[in-house]
Amino acid sequence: MDSDYGIPRELSALQKERALYKPEVPPCLQGTTVRVEYGDATTASDPAGAHVISRAFPHTYGQPLAHFLRATAKVPDAKIISEHPAIRVGLVFCGRQSPGGHNVVWGLYDAIKAHNPKSVFLGFVGGTEGLFAQKTLEITDDVLSSYKNQGGYDMLGRTKDQIRTTEQVNAAMATCQALKLDGLVIIGGVTSNTDAAQLAETFAEQKCSTKVVGVPVTLNGDLKNQFVETNVGFHTICKVNAQLISNVCTDALSAEKYYYFIRLMGRKASHVALECALQSHPNMVILGEEVAASKLTIFDLTKQICDAVQARADIGKNHGVILIPEGLVEKIPELYALLQEIHGLHGKGVSIENISSQLSPWATALFEFLPPFIRKQLLLHPESDDSAQLSQIETEKLLAQLVESEINRRLKEGIYKGKKFNAICHFFGYQARGSLPSKFDCDYAYVLGHVSYHVLAAGLNGYMATITNLKNPVNKWKCGAAPITAMMSVKRLSQGPATQIGKPAVHPATVDLKGRAYELLRENATSCLMEDLYRNPGPLQFEGPGADAKAISLSVEDRDYMGRIKLLQEYLDKVKSIVKPGCSQDVLKAALSAMASVTDTLAIMASPSFGGQPPY
Amino acid sequence: MDSDYGIPRELSALQKERALYKPEVPPCLQGTTVRVEYGDATTASDPAGAHVISRAFPHTYGQPLAHFLRATAKVPDAKIISEHPAIRVGLVFCGRQSPGGHNVVWGLYDAIKAHNPKSVFLGFVGGTEGLFAQKTLEITDDVLSSYKNQGGYDMLGRTKDQIRTTEQVNAAMATCQALKLDGLVIIGGVTSNTDAAQLAETFAEQKCSTKVVGVPVTLNGDLKNQFVETNVGFHTICKVNAQLISNVCTDALSAEKYYYFIRLMGRKASHVALECALQSHPNMVILGEEVAASKLTIFDLTKQICDAVQARADIGKNHGVILIPEGLVEKIPELYALLQEIHGLHGKGVSIENISSQLSPWATALFEFLPPFIRKQLLLHPESDDSAQLSQIETEKLLAQLVESEINRRLKEGIYKGKKFNAICHFFGYQARGSLPSKFDCDYAYVLGHVSYHVLAAGLNGYMATITNLKNPVNKWKCGAAPITAMMSVKRLSQGPATQIGKPAVHPATVDLKGRAYELLRENATSCLMEDLYRNPGPLQFEGPGADAKAISLSVEDRDYMGRIKLLQEYLDKVKSIVKPGCSQDVLKAALSAMASVTDTLAIMASPSFGGQPPY
Repeated sequence: MDSDYGIPRELSALQKERALYKPEVPPCLQGTTVRVEYGDATTASDPAGAHVISRAFPHTYGQPLAHFLRATAKVPDAKIISEHPAIRVGLVFCGRQSPGGHNVVWGLYDAIKAHNPKSVFLGFVGGTEGLFAQKTLEITDDVLSSYKNQGGYDMLGRTKDQIRTTEQVNAAMATCQALKLDGLVIIGGVTSNTDAAQLAETFAEQKCSTKVVGVPVTLNGDLKNQFVETNVGFHTICKVNAQLISNVCTDALSAEKYYYFIRLMGRKASHVALECALQSHPNMVILGEEVAASKLTIFDLTKQICDAVQARADIGKNHGVILIPEGLVEKIPELYALLQEIHGLHGKGVSIENISSQLSPWATALFEFLPPFIRKQLLLHPESDDSAQLSQIETEKLLAQLVESEINRRLKEGIYKGKKFNAICHFFGYQARGSLPSKFDCDYAYVLGHVSYHVLAAGLNGYMATITNLKNPVNKWKCGAAPITAMMSVKRLSQGPATQIGKPAVHPATVDLKGRAYELLRENATSCLMEDLYRNPGPLQFEGPGADAKAISLSVEDRDYMGRIKLLQEYLDKVKSIVKPGCSQDVLKAALSAMASVTDTLAIMASPSFGGQPPY
Repeated sequence: MDSDYGIPRELSALQKERALYKPEVPPCLQGTTVRVEYGDATTASDPAGAHVISRAFPHTYGQPLAHFLRATAKVPDAKIISEHPAIRVGLVFCGRQSPGGHNVVWGLYDAIKAHNPKSVFLGFVGGTEGLFAQKTLEITDDVLSSYKNQGGYDMLGRTKDQIRTTEQVNAAMATCQALKLDGLVIIGGVTSNTDAAQLAETFAEQKCSTKVVGVPVTLNGDLKNQFVETNVGFHTICKVNAQLISNVCTDALSAEKYYYFIRLMGRKASHVALECALQSHPNMVILGEEVAASKLTIFDLTKQICDAVQARADIGKNHGVILIPEGLVEKIPELYALLQEIHGLHGKGVSIENISSQLSPWATALFEFLPPFIRKQLLLHPESDDSAQLSQIETEKLLAQLVESEINRRLKEGIYKGKKFNAICHFFGYQARGSLPSKFDCDYAYVLGHVSYHVLAAGLNGYMATITNLKNPVNKWKCGAAPITAMMSVKRLSQGPATQIGKPAVHPATVDLKGRAYELLRENATSCLMEDLYRNPGPLQFEGPGADAKAISLSVEDRDYMGRIKLLQEYLDKVKSIVKPGCSQDVLKAALSAMASVTDTLAIMASPSFGGQPPY
């Protein structure tokens, strides 16, 4: 079954062309000598959970940030790594395939071999199953040749996503020891990186010498935090979907008789829907985060859409395009509660046929109100992480049906005066995931591969490879690494009478409703709704002016957290250098008074009782 | 409502870039003097129907082919058109929007204005409704500016597709007379061009001086015949869909647990499915034409797919991608018969709720066997052309469900030993239609616009603008025009005891199962099925090496019919020039004997009893 992995394959003309493209690396990673500058010890972004996290990760919590600097950088206390003994590194693809994943492998390979050609690089075939079963493929130039800048995870494959149970963790450790790995690189999203942190902690505790490094690769784009600006694959996914959405917008405007309801990927967060809306300007987009924040019911949403349809009909428009994220259904309070009841009954072993008869009276009422197709979908077994099978629940059809009946009611009552309401539903789920990665994702992934090597070369364990300043050209990118534990938070679950404290984890970042990208969406919401300002970002381009496009949400957000941390250090150093022994009493007094006020303010803001909002 | 037509709009960076692209015109259309060479009088490709067609089109049947030649071409009896009085031209978009439609308008505009800046060019807004209601928008540089090389039909819009009833034809004629149009250009597929021919005939009969020209624009790619090699929009549609199919193939290969069933556009013919398969190499494609030719039942198809799934499972593959055209359901004999019964009951005014109880016993048995969702879809009202609402019938889901139960049965009986069968269904219907047109479609449409002008300048009525030799670069393209009646055929409907003769019409060309493109598909069918030779043609490129791609089916077919007609003329001329009065008796005898044999053979082959197969 795994005999097909890594075999060369026939490429199309464009694929061949892409295979010849070689991403550049930023100056800090050029040459074979790299300087590592360590920052202060990290804390968790969630101060309230910090002690829980530190207790769960005694060996890997609180490690410092690492910045990789160019060999000529004048930083007094940087550690210079110029010796590169041969090492053995393994890599595993975890979770859903994301365009660009192959380039992480390629970048890591190039970095490994450039620093010591005797080093060995093994890919685990078939995802974590291959990791547990010690099934490997040695990465070579030959293996890589037809996978450079190509989509999918098919060079190595992927199966199950978890490295979580004791059995799984032990199997992974056995593999690392048997193969004498110096490093294990895990490619994935929030879940896989949480697993990576756990694995790193276990390895440290059990004195297994393999260092674990995570790489932020997830098309959901929800592994965002103070250290990570975006994820490999997110740009490509949004670009491909935005192209299709724009095509549908053009279609709507040409035929002038359909409302398109389009469901997009995005389970816990609506980043894809937000970015696609910024790119394509559809008439409406409903973000899960907005619905959750405003506690909108399915009836509120239906009314909102109907009001929009009616307002458009009043100005002669009988067509439109509406985007929703697949996670929407879990953000609508009453549907979420219904799903929780259903999953609870699943958990008790109640069979699907019997669930509906055992629901509470209010849940039964809601359930009976819903159209049969959606009832069937809501009854599906939950996923392994207890969320609903979101790809199977056709929320777009539910909304379209509810809107249709409400519009028909309004038509009968003479309130709605437009033409017959026609809805066409789409789920853009799987058709973008295997795409050729955009140039940005090719570059980002390739450089992250290089960074991963340097994290291992620096002997760091439980870190995630990071690049910041991504909205600027590659030669301005800043490379570093942050302990995964510093990205964790702890959820308080208030089920039943007592508050339960969840396990520390890297949680999906939801769309920041105070952020610049969302603000931009809101600014144009009314004109997009009424005026059909559709724009088509077009298909992914690999040559010409469109080739260097980046995600709009990345470009508008001012997110250089790592840069700011460094800037703060510079301020502190400046204070020290001004207020040296020998300075006047007045200067010292002013410094003390100012600093006392600063530290007081910060202490209050950082205390758990202040809210302890994670930065994203 | 129509106030929005033709307004400038905000374009994305790539759209702006594309708006700057200017297609070239072939040498024959450069300059302001064009020569027109007329061929012999045309016949219909269907000899059996020729007399029916000639009777239905007494004024426009049998007109000669026209070839447009460069001003310097040395052709003795070519008509030289060097005077270009100001003319008034109208244009209407008919039928489903197809990428490139806007460029026909642009090309026609440039040609009209280059030959006489005083000419007036009116677009009808809102499709045929605008034509009937005399709603126009004058085409100007300003109007065109943000629609050049852009997808959709939104510059002018489109609504209903027909110009067919006496009322509609009269309304169109009243408009042409009221607006003093010298020419009316109709953009559309087989149906719209049939209407164009009818309109031309009526105009000629009623002495309305407006000349009617058709342009072959349809994403189905089924307006193919001896004069027309491909249609505007077909390449783009196939390219966008092939990209998505390839993405899904990569996805299948990465996750190795899903079978994807993808339904593609293609109602009467499976050209899109064939071209997409040639581009992407999925595991399987089922063409409607194959099913019709082999009279495969839904059970045969299910078995075929199950056997493939099982054979793949035997070599450890539990994933795959299967393409079907949306027209498949009408090609499966028993489903077609069922649909005919249902449509018959619709025709008798039986309500949807009562139809199932009035079906014949065998139809009832089949109907009851089908899953409920498909029953509901089969019961939908037929379209205006009496075909089923194919976009609404989820044949891919039907097949997936039938395959799943059969595989589960085989699993229970121990015949199938693979992993659990998981199907994911997709309909790629609307997401490609509004795409930015490919460079090929931009060029083809723009040049067709120019050709349309020359057809009008030559005073031709009831012609379609044509370009042949399309697989070569633009400077090798041959421009001409053919009477639409020469593309018509007559269907014999054997409903009931007597054979009914249908109205002459341009019928959709089905995939030629003896053609080179299909042969290519078959040659690789087994290896594609078993070996996962997926290739990703990638997204549409506008710069770089991929930008000049053309449809594979266009490139492999040797289809220069117009060129061959000219070559034949050359042979005949050669015979004449060799066997001139004064040649030897022997030469004359040999010529007579050879020509007698040739004409005998051809007479037999061209007789109705020989089958009278249309060339496509």
